[in-house]
Amino acid sequence: MIGIGAGDPDQVTVQAIKAMNRAEVFFVIGKGAEKQDLVDLRTGILDEHMRGPYRIVDIVDPPRDRTPSDYEGVVDDWHDRRAAIFEERFGAVDGVGAILVWGDPSLYDSTLRIVERVLSRGIETFEYSVIPGVTSVQSLAAQHRIVLNRIGEPVHITTGRRLRDGLPEGVRDAVVMLDADCSFTEVPGDDVQIWWGAYLGTEDEVLISGNLREVEAEIVRVRAELRERKGWIMDTYLLRS
Amino acid sequence: MIGIGAGDPDQVTVQAIKAMNRAEVFFVIGKGAEKQDLVDLRTGILDEHMRGPYRIVDIVDPPRDRTPSDYEGVVDDWHDRRAAIFEERFGAVDGVGAILVWGDPSLYDSTLRIVERVLSRGIETFEYSVIPGVTSVQSLAAQHRIVLNRIGEPVHITTGRRLRDGLPEGVRDAVVMLDADCSFTEVPGDDVQIWWGAYLGTEDEVLISGNLREVEAEIVRVRAELRERKGWIMDTYLLRS
Ligand SMILES: C[S@@+](CC[C@H](N)C(=O)[O-])C[C@H]1O[C@@H](n2cnc3c(N)ncnc32)[C@H](O)[C@@H]1O
Ligand SMILES: C[S@@+](CC[C@H](N)C(=O)[O-])C[C@H]1O[C@@H](n2cnc3c(N)ncnc32)[C@H](O)[C@@H]1O
Repeated sequence: MIGIGAGDPDQVTVQAIKAMNRAEVFFVIGKGAEKQDLVDLRTGILDEHMRGPYRIVDIVDPPRDRTPSDYEGVVDDWHDRRAAIFEERFGAVDGVGAILVWGDPSLYDSTLRIVERVLSRGIETFEYSVIPGVTSVQSLAAQHRIVLNRIGEPVHITTGRRLRDGLPEGVRDAVVMLDADCSFTEVPGDDVQIWWGAYLGTEDEVLISGNLREVEAEIVRVRAELRERKGWIMDTYLLRS
Repeated sequence: MIGIGAGDPDQVTVQAIKAMNRAEVFFVIGKGAEKQDLVDLRTGILDEHMRGPYRIVDIVDPPRDRTPSDYEGVVDDWHDRRAAIFEERFGAVDGVGAILVWGDPSLYDSTLRIVERVLSRGIETFEYSVIPGVTSVQSLAAQHRIVLNRIGEPVHITTGRRLRDGLPEGVRDAVVMLDADCSFTEVPGDDVQIWWGAYLGTEDEVLISGNLREVEAEIVRVRAELRERKGWIMDTYLLRS
């Protein structure tokens, strides 16, 4: 399981390149047509770094209820259906297979859980290791040239959904991912700074930063335009109060 | 400013290697003899990846009060003294200089703040960019093959010092860095899991995981032994309650 960074093809590590070159088969997980750009980016990375021939096996995600009331339950069921598909694809391969994971596998990514689920079903057996990657959080900070934490203070990494419920008491620096709803507009206060980035590391990268109240409308507008134009968007941001 | 990953020389990215090869001078920041291993690791990375000649300029950190009562004030003064040293070293160089930063520059690292401080003094002028790296947090998760967050839940990244004051209400998953005092032993509860790693990515790497109450004594003992043997230690861990 290979973390490949969050957008810039050069953000792949030497360790990742070596691991890729030990693999005969790549399982490429697509989420449907709208994210074809991301699939292209992954195959672009392979073309650039593979020294020998390789085979690609597509894994198409099963459909998912996007607005569930029972969030955890629905996600759990979806992972079960994914595991069954992975198991079948793994079963068709002898030798070393690899899965390229966007950013780093340890952050808001389900691939590790699915692979563990496949193993726990006991039908396919294999060994695996995880190669860490640069996360979109690191990419955001680099592009804005900021340190995520204040001196000696914590950093909280959370989702748009959680941000709407309010940050835990005492949390003053929060990175927000997976926010389809511009939840930053719900954050109260006149003294909050935001560092926002979309399509980080790609040629479409956009950065906006400033006082939240002063730039939130601009971010909402730019985000909607970009999403409309490309059909998908990935964005993340740091809030500092 | 180039993030170089947190231990494994192969954890450097293609982007970092390209940036290194644009530099004529490397500013290498040492903290004194005990961390010579880390300085060696950095020069090892350069030897492996540099295609042309380069020059190294050492920057030795000024001494620092390790047990201050006024923590932030002391750190601030220390950064000022550091900035003056950096300014003088930068001033002696024409062309492209680089600083290699352990892990990623955005996480508990002061290099960015110092460089901004040098710029704000207005004596040396230069442009700079930040190349993100794999953090020790990503390395920890990869070696243990874990996801940091639970599905849809936040991850809190904090320090040993802060952990002792207690985690914010509702935080159930916390990564702890900069913990010289085994603060995990102060965390209450019988239902806490820990994933601990020291010297991640190096040949001295040690991993211990399990129920906190069952493994804490072992971690304390192993940590003390390793620290004694090598003269320094870097460790980090995830707590999950
Ligand atoms: C399913 S999570 C995967 C995160 C990934 N594992 C990582 O390490 O960055 C997807 C979220 O990551 C963030 N993200 C990933 N790539 C991004 C990029 N290139 N630019 C901005 N945000 C990105 C967005 O918040 C997006 O909603
Ligand atoms: C000053 S901070 C720098 C963090 C670094 N910027 C990063 O991205 O990982 C140093 C702390 O990082 C953690 N750390 C860094 N490298 C490590 C390694 N190889 N193994 C375990 N912990 C490490 C430890 O918690 C250590 O106290």
